[in-house]
Amino acid sequence: MKLMLTALTVALAWALASPASAGNPARGLEISQVCQSCHGEDGNLALEADYPIIAGQHFNYLVRALEDYRSGDRDHAIMSSFARDLSDRDIRDLAAWYSRQEGPLKP
Amino acid sequence: MKLMLTALTVALAWALASPASAGNPARGLEISQVCQSCHGEDGNLALEADYPIIAGQHFNYLVRALEDYRSGDRDHAIMSSFARDLSDRDIRDLAAWYSRQEGPLKP
Repeated sequence: MKLMLTALTVALAWALASPASAGNPARGLEISQVCQSCHGEDGNLALEADYPIIAGQHFNYLVRALEDYRSGDRDHAIMSSFARDLSDRDIRDLAAWYSRQEGPLKP
Repeated sequence: MKLMLTALTVALAWALASPASAGNPARGLEISQVCQSCHGEDGNLALEADYPIIAGQHFNYLVRALEDYRSGDRDHAIMSSFARDLSDRDIRDLAAWYSRQEGPLKP
């Protein structure tokens, strides 16, 4: 519920202020189900210890990581498979969502 | 100064409690000068917007990232060049330092 309210607030702020190129975090949350099983809804989960925390990571870095997985410049069995079908818009929206979350959890 | 005290505290805690495989964060700080120009002393700097925050990132993920840059499985003009000469111990020590820092900075 808290995350839903956050998403709505972020969506409103985005609609009022952001250029399209910055991504839509609310849509990013919507399409992030497949990410959540490993990264969590807010990007602080790391299902395996060698998966990264992505909550609060830089937007541009997340965009580049997803683009590199999609193009094959970066390879990971799971990520490459998921990233293959992402559009540019999907990538920006997912990056907009995760970059805006609080993180990371301290060990 | 605060970081130096933190490093000493962490070094003591490490000496008392950690297995060698977990890395030595104090030595990681010592050998991190070359990292600091882009990532900052505590890993919260991102000199370019598409460089990642690494403060507080999972130890295992940082180890894997450096190993992948070293082996060529992951490629980045700057990182690949720096990682080429790192030993396994260097990688664990750098990961131990950065994974223990507070982060990331919120945008």
